[in-house]
Amino acid sequence: MPSPAENDTQLKQTLRQVIFGTQTSAGRKFDIVLMICIVLSVSLVLLDTIEAVNKQYGDVIRIAEWVFTGIFTIEYIVRLYCSINRWHYARSFFGVVDLVSILPSYLALFFPGANFALAIRVLRLFRIFRVLKLLRYLSEGNILLRAMVMSSRKIFIFFFSVSLIVLVLSVIMYVVEGPQRGFTSIPKSMYWTIVTITTVGYGDITPQTPLGQAIASVTMLIGYSILAIPTGILTAELSNEMVRERDLRKCSNCGHRGHDTDAEYCNHCGTELETSPLSEQD
Amino acid sequence: MPSPAENDTQLKQTLRQVIFGTQTSAGRKFDIVLMICIVLSVSLVLLDTIEAVNKQYGDVIRIAEWVFTGIFTIEYIVRLYCSINRWHYARSFFGVVDLVSILPSYLALFFPGANFALAIRVLRLFRIFRVLKLLRYLSEGNILLRAMVMSSRKIFIFFFSVSLIVLVLSVIMYVVEGPQRGFTSIPKSMYWTIVTITTVGYGDITPQTPLGQAIASVTMLIGYSILAIPTGILTAELSNEMVRERDLRKCSNCGHRGHDTDAEYCNHCGTELETSPLSEQD
Amino acid sequence: MPSPAENDTQLKQTLRQVIFGTQTSAGRKFDIVLMICIVLSVSLVLLDTIEAVNKQYGDVIRIAEWVFTGIFTIEYIVRLYCSINRWHYARSFFGVVDLVSILPSYLALFFPGANFALAIRVLRLFRIFRVLKLLRYLSEGNILLRAMVMSSRKIFIFFFSVSLIVLVLSVIMYVVEGPQRGFTSIPKSMYWTIVTITTVGYGDITPQTPLGQAIASVTMLIGYSILAIPTGILTAELSNEMVRERDLRKCSNCGHRGHDTDAEYCNHCGTELETSPLSEQD
Amino acid sequence: MPSPAENDTQLKQTLRQVIFGTQTSAGRKFDIVLMICIVLSVSLVLLDTIEAVNKQYGDVIRIAEWVFTGIFTIEYIVRLYCSINRWHYARSFFGVVDLVSILPSYLALFFPGANFALAIRVLRLFRIFRVLKLLRYLSEGNILLRAMVMSSRKIFIFFFSVSLIVLVLSVIMYVVEGPQRGFTSIPKSMYWTIVTITTVGYGDITPQTPLGQAIASVTMLIGYSILAIPTGILTAELSNEMVRERDLRKCSNCGHRGHDTDAEYCNHCGTELETSPLSEQD
Repeated sequence: MPSPAENDTQLKQTLRQVIFGTQTSAGRKFDIVLMICIVLSVSLVLLDTIEAVNKQYGDVIRIAEWVFTGIFTIEYIVRLYCSINRWHYARSFFGVVDLVSILPSYLALFFPGANFALAIRVLRLFRIFRVLKLLRYLSEGNILLRAMVMSSRKIFIFFFSVSLIVLVLSVIMYVVEGPQRGFTSIPKSMYWTIVTITTVGYGDITPQTPLGQAIASVTMLIGYSILAIPTGILTAELSNEMVRERDLRKCSNCGHRGHDTDAEYCNHCGTELETSPLSEQD
Repeated sequence: MPSPAENDTQLKQTLRQVIFGTQTSAGRKFDIVLMICIVLSVSLVLLDTIEAVNKQYGDVIRIAEWVFTGIFTIEYIVRLYCSINRWHYARSFFGVVDLVSILPSYLALFFPGANFALAIRVLRLFRIFRVLKLLRYLSEGNILLRAMVMSSRKIFIFFFSVSLIVLVLSVIMYVVEGPQRGFTSIPKSMYWTIVTITTVGYGDITPQTPLGQAIASVTMLIGYSILAIPTGILTAELSNEMVRERDLRKCSNCGHRGHDTDAEYCNHCGTELETSPLSEQD
Repeated sequence: MPSPAENDTQLKQTLRQVIFGTQTSAGRKFDIVLMICIVLSVSLVLLDTIEAVNKQYGDVIRIAEWVFTGIFTIEYIVRLYCSINRWHYARSFFGVVDLVSILPSYLALFFPGANFALAIRVLRLFRIFRVLKLLRYLSEGNILLRAMVMSSRKIFIFFFSVSLIVLVLSVIMYVVEGPQRGFTSIPKSMYWTIVTITTVGYGDITPQTPLGQAIASVTMLIGYSILAIPTGILTAELSNEMVRERDLRKCSNCGHRGHDTDAEYCNHCGTELETSPLSEQD
Repeated sequence: MPSPAENDTQLKQTLRQVIFGTQTSAGRKFDIVLMICIVLSVSLVLLDTIEAVNKQYGDVIRIAEWVFTGIFTIEYIVRLYCSINRWHYARSFFGVVDLVSILPSYLALFFPGANFALAIRVLRLFRIFRVLKLLRYLSEGNILLRAMVMSSRKIFIFFFSVSLIVLVLSVIMYVVEGPQRGFTSIPKSMYWTIVTITTVGYGDITPQTPLGQAIASVTMLIGYSILAIPTGILTAELSNEMVRERDLRKCSNCGHRGHDTDAEYCNHCGTELETSPLSEQD
């Protein structure tokens, strides 16, 4: 919970709670409205790239674009106004994203360069991450995140090993199939290996020699079975985190929380503690 | 278990037990016969769309279609007759499905529009869900369902994150590959990204620039490894649910059921309780 | 362990132990030699279908084929000779497979029909399952099998639900894309849906309308995430079985086995029992 | 930790610690520099196979190649100089790899044969495995490796079963689709089956008869669902290993380590032991 400085005006405090906070009902409603605006505005940018849509609804989209730019501009000014430390906000990650996501529309007036502005306008999406601060308050997101952090080292080792396998297989396939059958260079051969080992299988490059097809078969089987590894890592960690989470929640007898995971009796009232479903016992 | 109203006739009660119930042997047999009729009738609709079959067996299929329509019509009337509250049944989900699944055949007499009627006739499939009430009584279905409900929030967060990744990658690929290489618009680019990230890989649109192929490789590796996340979530929940289910079953010493998961001794006879296989102990 | 009848000759008993048994060293060696013969003989059948190989080594392969047929014929006769109940063996699954796998070569002398004989000759493969009786003695195979049997009901429910999803999506895609874009009938549309939902993605039929591509994207995401379900089911069961297996093995203090999974003390010597790694405790 | 022989010179000991060791700060820095050199040198080999790059930067790459060969040559000589038993190092796996990875550049002076030298030059990659000795000290790598060793027997049984399924399906598809639809031989049919069962799905060979498409659909569903098996195996083992690892770390009360997994009280100070998060209790 943000602890607002004492000398703020009532208006600023209220605005701050609504715009930056997620604890109050008004704050959550504001976040939802903002999220809808972001999604709509990004959807328009996407749809505008379809030629048929651009031809027929181009004008409507341009007007809507300016409406959203107006809303986001007002929002940016209000955020600046009500933040405790304006300079701190303006230089923060979300402050920069907020500014950057409204600039392209204004810049497009002076420098008409479609693709460049487009790429930046889609940056607006990152603003959704702000709204997602909400998610941090859902324990589910927390558990997922902790499990991913816990397993990141093992996943790194996994990807390192996969990279080596990909490299070795790419060189072999480059030598076996050769440039005249689509494997024009080792980087291209690596693209093929990744397409194969991840079981994507576009079919734009395929092995044509019997030996190449045999090696490709091995590559597929490797890719098919090593998928088990990151899944296994994450599942094991997630299972751990879920148990830990539940332990923190339990202790239902007297309402006290935060016992050690190996505590047998509540350290507050002395009644036996309920343990997690995965290891229920005395 | 349905508790039939006291003032029903014996016939109505029996019919209700057979048609709506799944506890009696006759009720289960009725459900199985009904399921076979539904599957056969839907299969005919499907096969009829094959031109060769339609030419050769079109007449036979049309006759069979009318036979099934007759059976389903009789069934609908009997259901209406024996239900405790007819209006309540007629407006219920399954009441509407039952009616809708027999209407197309009659409507086709007056409005001959093949595709429209077809789409509705396949709605019959939803009637199978009624028969599937059976499944609710299999604890297996129960566990699966509970695990899915328990993990639905985490899965939602997962899909939200995947959507953001898909959007960012689509914009990048649209800018990198461009309209002249198949990425004609961002929505089309999103289609490609989903084809790639789910490791489907049709190959109808493939990256052709070296940079595009490098980004595609990253997309594949992301898709390949994030598959671990929903699997991990569901496995952890399922494991939990299976343990909980087993706990409810155990308490074998005196036949009593329904102890708290943390109970050490049977609350009926005082002997030590058998715990789940995942954490067997005193 | 087979308990041989008392009135057998010494020779028969020894032969039976070698040919049918897997406990003795000679029995295992026999099984390994037999397995190599089966694999070699099947490999020859496979390689013979490659036109280039057939042209160059056709004669060699035909001779080798007769050598293997000879070996398998002798083996069949010896099996018949040394089995306790000859008629019982001849009518058993493996007895029929043994006979069927040598017949095609002899029949080919009178009825020269390549494909027909080929298909049967490959039945020899099933003989490998006999040798695999070995696997039954590896606890690993046992655990896998038990876990699969335990989860078969849940997996069935899963496949039933997938079938319904496939059917609904097929009808929708047939209506949306239509016969002129490759979706010539609903069965063909089902083939496309299965290709997509299992993330195989051949690309021989692909959606071409924007709506079709949107529905295809949803299909892919469904297929991508429901993969979690059978994995979750099997992992949870396997985890259970592994724990149970370990419990049966433990009780190391006095060598006694087969305690209840919830036993705290060895029921033979009274010392505390070692429990499984998943739930180590007092 | 390497226990250096007493009669070594100070220089040799220091060099050995830096070059072979990974415990000291200097040793780790050396490993990192070496790893960067290996990665750069291999990257150059890869990029050199792109025709455009070869034409424009061919000379620069050749010079860089000689610089790296020089560095690796010096490293090899120093390793020989400072190893306790030179002959033992020279014949060890890494000694051979070190020598082999510098030879191609020298041999290319006398025998200019591009592909042959290339394939060997990429062997340098194996030198990275030496640097990866580092990983052995990360408990994460250890757990992954142990889990894979523990599950290797089950995985073998899995792959054996998959091979049988692939073979049977290949023969069926060869008979059903036949040589005129791309299934020219059983080995080619096996290639198709592996492409399908691993859900890669290139689409270079696709079933065209209705029966073939039906069998292909079954193949896909099999491939899709058996993926659950290796994942389940590895996850269960990994979960076990993680618990075991944690048990070895715990015993926090008095700092003593290495208790039996079933120990209730610390065998050093007698206080109750903290057990793993998966089964926390007294």
